[in-house]
Amino acid sequence: MEHWLNSVPVFLDHMAKVDGCATSHAAKRLAQYGPTAGIVAGLIAAQLRADERIECDPEQVVVTAGCQEALSLVIPALCPAPGDVMLARNPTYIGVTGVADFAGIEIVPVEPAGDEDWACTLARVTAKLRRAGKAPRGLYLTPEFDNPTGTVLTEAQRRSIIAGCGEHRIVLLEDNPYGMFRFEGVAPPPMAVLDDAGCVVYLATYSKTLCPAVRVGAAVVPKRLFGSADAAERFRVELCERKSFVTVNTSQVTQALVGGVLLREGGSLRAIVEGPRMHYRRNRDALLRALDRAFGTQGDTVQWNRPNGGFFLGLSLPFDFAQAQTAQCAREHGVIVMPMTFFSLDGTHRREIRLAFSNTDEREIEAGVERFARYVETQASLTH
Amino acid sequence: MEHWLNSVPVFLDHMAKVDGCATSHAAKRLAQYGPTAGIVAGLIAAQLRADERIECDPEQVVVTAGCQEALSLVIPALCPAPGDVMLARNPTYIGVTGVADFAGIEIVPVEPAGDEDWACTLARVTAKLRRAGKAPRGLYLTPEFDNPTGTVLTEAQRRSIIAGCGEHRIVLLEDNPYGMFRFEGVAPPPMAVLDDAGCVVYLATYSKTLCPAVRVGAAVVPKRLFGSADAAERFRVELCERKSFVTVNTSQVTQALVGGVLLREGGSLRAIVEGPRMHYRRNRDALLRALDRAFGTQGDTVQWNRPNGGFFLGLSLPFDFAQAQTAQCAREHGVIVMPMTFFSLDGTHRREIRLAFSNTDEREIEAGVERFARYVETQASLTH
Repeated sequence: MEHWLNSVPVFLDHMAKVDGCATSHAAKRLAQYGPTAGIVAGLIAAQLRADERIECDPEQVVVTAGCQEALSLVIPALCPAPGDVMLARNPTYIGVTGVADFAGIEIVPVEPAGDEDWACTLARVTAKLRRAGKAPRGLYLTPEFDNPTGTVLTEAQRRSIIAGCGEHRIVLLEDNPYGMFRFEGVAPPPMAVLDDAGCVVYLATYSKTLCPAVRVGAAVVPKRLFGSADAAERFRVELCERKSFVTVNTSQVTQALVGGVLLREGGSLRAIVEGPRMHYRRNRDALLRALDRAFGTQGDTVQWNRPNGGFFLGLSLPFDFAQAQTAQCAREHGVIVMPMTFFSLDGTHRREIRLAFSNTDEREIEAGVERFARYVETQASLTH
Repeated sequence: MEHWLNSVPVFLDHMAKVDGCATSHAAKRLAQYGPTAGIVAGLIAAQLRADERIECDPEQVVVTAGCQEALSLVIPALCPAPGDVMLARNPTYIGVTGVADFAGIEIVPVEPAGDEDWACTLARVTAKLRRAGKAPRGLYLTPEFDNPTGTVLTEAQRRSIIAGCGEHRIVLLEDNPYGMFRFEGVAPPPMAVLDDAGCVVYLATYSKTLCPAVRVGAAVVPKRLFGSADAAERFRVELCERKSFVTVNTSQVTQALVGGVLLREGGSLRAIVEGPRMHYRRNRDALLRALDRAFGTQGDTVQWNRPNGGFFLGLSLPFDFAQAQTAQCAREHGVIVMPMTFFSLDGTHRREIRLAFSNTDEREIEAGVERFARYVETQASLTH
């Protein structure tokens, strides 16, 4: 934290060099209001290129006060008319549900039926919505280590989703807070990289890679929105106009902090995330070991996925786990888990929970899973 | 700016002392997500008491990413139903118009007719709106050195407005960015101090007193909203819920920066604003001298007010001054002024402009007014 504050002067020197002025002059300018789209768009574009293979120009980047602000700008901008709806997988990140609720925008759950491919799913859902006088305008996704499920979309799924979005002019919001925390295997390309339809708005955040306290994120608008450079520019301008009436511009102090870190790190955050990435991997390993030990002999009554990265995994139980169970489990067994219904768009997923392995350590995980296993045992015997 | 970054460790020490933990532990906590309502509410409450005579508890304060975020939370929260409208003086600050426009909320201009008092005005406007199936839910005001007009409401006017707002259950948004920049005379009490109706939501900002780059402001909810502590608490909780889906929480880096400055200054910003206040006063004096020199002999064809503080004054011209004139005046005479129509809710005030004397100096002002006088001369002769 204090270490990062030292990055502000690094950014000031950079600003002074770019503008050909004294550092003191740059500091005066930094203290003022600034451009709505921000002053670190170029550094963010370079980082996305280095770390995510995403080719974008600084002009496509709108810097926001955290990724949440980007969601709060993009979703209402996509859905201005009554009947405009958002699509999302179910369960989904509650930051999206909250924005939509306050803006009075419906979120429709979307999931392939059986082995249906995603393009067909999107065609089916779109047709059904149109018959009801509605239009899907956006689809929210975290393709890489989804919150809350920890799942990853394959490259084939990503391509199929882009085809469907292109076909039905659905803007895809690709949220990627956890992509840099992959422990094994090769990451499929981000959807922004695969985007041949001009449908992907990529959402960047520095909350997980640097720290949540900076509240710096970005929305990256496609160069050509569904093929139109004009439409892309109009959309970008609308995001800026909306932003000017929410936060005016992202704090130039925190932008300078992020910018300074990016400069110091030569444009990539790989080195900075390495320590946390290893820590999360050890935690994931400890969690999987503990789950195997606690539930491995019980057949398929308790099941979970084995994510190759991220912060979360999903686990299914042989009984409903709702608010009362959450409170009981925390109170009587000292384990806080999130019921999947908290993230559910329609009250389904009642026997599932989200386990987080980020903000903890191996010992806590082992002890926590043991206590949780005792809770499950008690509960399962009661419900049998 | 760099000087202010040094205030972050001051806040960290304070945090460590309050929590009885090591500074390094406080720093770790600061780097994380934090409470939606912020971590400097107590310091802000103390500063409002010291500098503005406003008695409030930390529990009434919601820290926001600048005052603009407070507006973007409060206005939609006050006007959830169709027919709920906002009131504002005309012309008014565009940050309010922008929020209302994007939220689909109507702003109705409100101004006493003749020597009508404000309570009567509010009764008249409310009755008229109710007949049209509408309800006024909020009134936005900058009582002290209004942007764009530079005017100040007297204590009698303030009391009358509060009476009217209490009577008709209209929440009064008191914006006060310029109150600490009074050059002469005694300030009337802020409306939050006079508020015996429980109607005032006070909006604080550190953009003018410290710097805009911090993006830290606050909304202070009344202890009892129209007499009800429950209603006040529900409103505060709703603001926090809305904020959690916009910026999650205000950057704890910038909160620490503001908090550290407040700690270092012993809770008051008087000393810090003294230099800028003197600078703005010299600018105001230079502007009034230059206007007297340029237009003093022309009778009442050009008129302006003489504010005792703030950043702005209003000036009326003998001809319309719209977008074309703004561009021409800037291009041909090198003077940028804001046409009052930019702030007008209904296209009126077409012969008025706003002159800003904050971000400039005496020499620029003198030269600028001379050039502007030549522009006015040319223009007036053309339109005669």
